[in-house]
Amino acid sequence: MKVDGRPMRTIWPGDDGRSVQIIDQTQLPHAFVTQRLTSVADAAHAIRHMQVRGAPLIGVTAAYGFWLQTLDDPRDAALAAARTELLSTRPTAVNLRFALEAMDEALRGVDVAARAARARARADALAEEDVAMCRAIGAHGAPLLEAIHARSGRPVQMLTHCNAGWLATVDWGTALAPVYVAHERGVPLHVWVDETRPRNQGASLTAWELLSHRIPHTVVADNAGAHLMQRGQVDLVIVGSDRTTARGDVCNKIGTLQKALAAHEYGVPFHVALPVSTIDWTLEDGSSIPIEERSGDELRQVVGRDADGKLVTVEILPRGSAVANPAFDVTPARLVSGLVTERGRCAASREGLLELYPERS
Amino acid sequence: MKVDGRPMRTIWPGDDGRSVQIIDQTQLPHAFVTQRLTSVADAAHAIRHMQVRGAPLIGVTAAYGFWLQTLDDPRDAALAAARTELLSTRPTAVNLRFALEAMDEALRGVDVAARAARARARADALAEEDVAMCRAIGAHGAPLLEAIHARSGRPVQMLTHCNAGWLATVDWGTALAPVYVAHERGVPLHVWVDETRPRNQGASLTAWELLSHRIPHTVVADNAGAHLMQRGQVDLVIVGSDRTTARGDVCNKIGTLQKALAAHEYGVPFHVALPVSTIDWTLEDGSSIPIEERSGDELRQVVGRDADGKLVTVEILPRGSAVANPAFDVTPARLVSGLVTERGRCAASREGLLELYPERS
Repeated sequence: MKVDGRPMRTIWPGDDGRSVQIIDQTQLPHAFVTQRLTSVADAAHAIRHMQVRGAPLIGVTAAYGFWLQTLDDPRDAALAAARTELLSTRPTAVNLRFALEAMDEALRGVDVAARAARARARADALAEEDVAMCRAIGAHGAPLLEAIHARSGRPVQMLTHCNAGWLATVDWGTALAPVYVAHERGVPLHVWVDETRPRNQGASLTAWELLSHRIPHTVVADNAGAHLMQRGQVDLVIVGSDRTTARGDVCNKIGTLQKALAAHEYGVPFHVALPVSTIDWTLEDGSSIPIEERSGDELRQVVGRDADGKLVTVEILPRGSAVANPAFDVTPARLVSGLVTERGRCAASREGLLELYPERS
Repeated sequence: MKVDGRPMRTIWPGDDGRSVQIIDQTQLPHAFVTQRLTSVADAAHAIRHMQVRGAPLIGVTAAYGFWLQTLDDPRDAALAAARTELLSTRPTAVNLRFALEAMDEALRGVDVAARAARARARADALAEEDVAMCRAIGAHGAPLLEAIHARSGRPVQMLTHCNAGWLATVDWGTALAPVYVAHERGVPLHVWVDETRPRNQGASLTAWELLSHRIPHTVVADNAGAHLMQRGQVDLVIVGSDRTTARGDVCNKIGTLQKALAAHEYGVPFHVALPVSTIDWTLEDGSSIPIEERSGDELRQVVGRDADGKLVTVEILPRGSAVANPAFDVTPARLVSGLVTERGRCAASREGLLELYPERS
């Protein structure tokens, strides 16, 4: 997507043929800083310190990090060490493991001398596959917005929660891909952006990427969504998914469930955009998904710029109060109007998903 | 209620007979600072700068401010000027007007020389009336918690939104009064405290007062409530009300509606505690209540303590993103399990309210 009119991805190989560039997302929305990675250690550091985040982007960053290792030392022992180092950065990230397996596969039986070129080609391909997948989600989701505009003649009012935009992927995003595609097609639209406490990914990342791409948007407190829906100010909701069960239950950022309940109450369509990689075919019932409890410091501390533009961390809670910080919640399929994947749209049900993925029958 | 074991109110006359003490709530939860008001100008400043807030407390502060004026100059012209000054601080606060009318009434036909004593007596009475009213709300609400504990044998898990505690009144509070009374009666309980973005009254005020009174509590993001209810971790919700219609629709802090929808979905009782002064007998349908749109800076800026303990304001949004900040929402009566007032409990309906207030028939 664009940053101040200039097309941009979240990760791209450097012109020198031995580096990778990323956007340092820990600086957003306060400063737009790109960073050059020149070793597997740099890539591991970027993932570990969340300079890159979002499952698809983490996977691609690991792939490029693995490629950087092949430039330094492409022998088996060095590659095994690189793999271990990268895997340790975010032990639960499924895409990370998947990307490294793809890199291993690509180098299997390849001469040491030919490994760097082969690794680079595979990492590039993984990035392009992610872009194509997200673009397809956008193409399948955009008609939802087009239909609303065709019916009302007014700008489409969409609400989203957290950041499932291009910053979480290589480009286009998932929940925001339909927005970018519809915008490209000239559909007038406006996005209500949930702040998304406690990590503020809506206020910091979604707002920044929509602002940078010049898409009209308004940030609201997480508390405001039901009120906006009650007063008819939301035409549809689209969110992403961290994990989707085989029957269409959706585990996503904490607060998604409240928006789904409000949308259900006020007849607002509630769609979930997701790549196939988030579908857990082994799981039916989302209520059995264990919910990660993250550090209370995410709620206690807020990072922002002070009057001098410097990044400062402040504490907002009384010392001594306990904090609970469940990071995700589960929205049951019956509250989901539909799923949007790279293959098309379907009902949030086992039958719906099997229509798109018949090979899973 | 207590602060570190010491009984405390939010406002009390000084021992010197010519001052009033308040807790400077703008410093909470970071510092506990009391302030001495010695003139009507001091009282007006305290109200205007939200060192005192909450409708009942604002009214009582204005009454004491008026009394301070009678010590300086009790003549008609001076009192009229004091009234104008106090009314201008928060023009829409109904309790402010009500308190000043009560003071006027008390001084009607009273000799100039006797006015100070009479004003002090009336201000004291207004404070005591508020305490008695909140205590009564607590006494009527506490059985809700007692019944849950009697049934489950476990600590009662209550969730509240915003701050409707003793800091918003002279003592006891409204939504938290049942908690304090039940706690006094030995009912084990734990309060989930919504952070309450964007002004963080839950994280800063509710958490502080529960901590100070040593009531077990846990602060959560506003996003977490539905998830906690879905997983059976909330026994009941009690919130306050800024305005209640004659049929029981409740206008309260933004985000209340989302909690009511979640409670309805998961069968969690949702009660609203309110003094009679918030009931608008002229209004049936809450959806016609105009919702105050407050400054977007409340969402853009966060105040907290930095590493040195100094209060600092930081900006968390990208420059250029629009912000919407509706301050209240309306929960329809059908989502409200019951109302708790100083006269007792009733259904959230015209019939329910008229049972408690038959004089309104």
